[in-house]
Amino acid sequence: MENMKQRRTIRKYQSKDIPAELLNDLLETSFRASTVGNMQAYSVVVTRDAARKEKLAPAHFNQPMVKAAPVVLTFCIDLNRFSKWCEWRHAVPGYNNFEWFVTGAIDALLVAQTFCVAAEEKGLGICYLGTTTYNPQMIIEALELPELVFPIATVTVGWPDECPNQVDRLPIEAIIHHETYRDYTAEDIDRFYAYKESLPENKQFVLENNKETLAQVFTDVRYTKKDNEAMSEALWNAMKAQGF
Amino acid sequence: MENMKQRRTIRKYQSKDIPAELLNDLLETSFRASTVGNMQAYSVVVTRDAARKEKLAPAHFNQPMVKAAPVVLTFCIDLNRFSKWCEWRHAVPGYNNFEWFVTGAIDALLVAQTFCVAAEEKGLGICYLGTTTYNPQMIIEALELPELVFPIATVTVGWPDECPNQVDRLPIEAIIHHETYRDYTAEDIDRFYAYKESLPENKQFVLENNKETLAQVFTDVRYTKKDNEAMSEALWNAMKAQGF
Repeated sequence: MENMKQRRTIRKYQSKDIPAELLNDLLETSFRASTVGNMQAYSVVVTRDAARKEKLAPAHFNQPMVKAAPVVLTFCIDLNRFSKWCEWRHAVPGYNNFEWFVTGAIDALLVAQTFCVAAEEKGLGICYLGTTTYNPQMIIEALELPELVFPIATVTVGWPDECPNQVDRLPIEAIIHHETYRDYTAEDIDRFYAYKESLPENKQFVLENNKETLAQVFTDVRYTKKDNEAMSEALWNAMKAQGF
Repeated sequence: MENMKQRRTIRKYQSKDIPAELLNDLLETSFRASTVGNMQAYSVVVTRDAARKEKLAPAHFNQPMVKAAPVVLTFCIDLNRFSKWCEWRHAVPGYNNFEWFVTGAIDALLVAQTFCVAAEEKGLGICYLGTTTYNPQMIIEALELPELVFPIATVTVGWPDECPNQVDRLPIEAIIHHETYRDYTAEDIDRFYAYKESLPENKQFVLENNKETLAQVFTDVRYTKKDNEAMSEALWNAMKAQGF
């Protein structure tokens, strides 16, 4: 557990490869994660080929990890395999809907995170690419995902070539609620966000972006309402186009 | 990693409690999981109180684990805290949409699964309740979740009072794709599902339910198209009602 407490996201990797046996062992371990009805409503696409990474990179806003990591994993919701099994067994599947998009996402994400914990235990470094839900359609095309398959998380994996500082987290009492949800007062928010707001790197972001508060860096620069709404629509359309 | 390979879901628990320090330590460890933009778009509601478990149980179809486990954890998508921070910092949040429902779900599920791996390492047993996405509205009411907070996974936790057999999984080549998604032929499906279909307990399910194939047990009994569509609508409506 010490390993899990000390973890940091790794964005720079050595050029050293990941042996297929190790990768398969880590993936097999991750497939022991809980899954709804033991249906395993997920698939994992392994990208090692430079040309394929080249195709995938624009979907991830050309973040350098995509081409620099020896392995890129795309964890997908997959109701295609299960539905095919049903059809070839004289059973009528009913998994092309929102409920199973979400259920498949849960299945796939438990696998993704189990993989990451296991990989870090073996000394590998990982980075989740938040861009997966921004440009799903480009990923669907690059990986040739059929109907009822949808990319939900992308993880770059490799041997660490950096040891960044651990980033801050909110105090645990900001996250944990007892028995019922206790909504936040202005005083709670001040207390819980004080440390984050006090960090020199965050003060620097405020200055650099010519903003008054750190929150404005998020709302006006990083994740604007306008961008979020455009991404919502694209995500929804991609989900529908994949048959959910 | 051996622990992760040997895991099984635990549904029967000793009456022994989980000390608050241990639970907090496990939760704090789980909050080191990756999170989009370090926004921690999640909250965890801890249920220990018998009366509250009583309220929660019907939402989970009265599965006995809810009342029997010393601790029930509801992992929630939470854009309420972050949005409040924005509002009180003269920033205009834009996280009340589908993109951030999905992003919050990813954040919350990485935390949930990290918690589970850590808990199992400490000898605890866990069970995910798939019912969370079937009856979100009942959970929202039982835990008094405000707008922009949504339950995405429920985990019961306790000291194991059983050691069930490990359940089957598909062969790893059924799940892993190289470079692009390779769609399944009828022969692939036969090969990948042969072991599952050969298991005596699965043959028993087919017999008991008076079906021809195991797939029909899933489509006609466990997760029917009609139920799935009703649940999709309820999930969608609950998501909208919570302001996403």
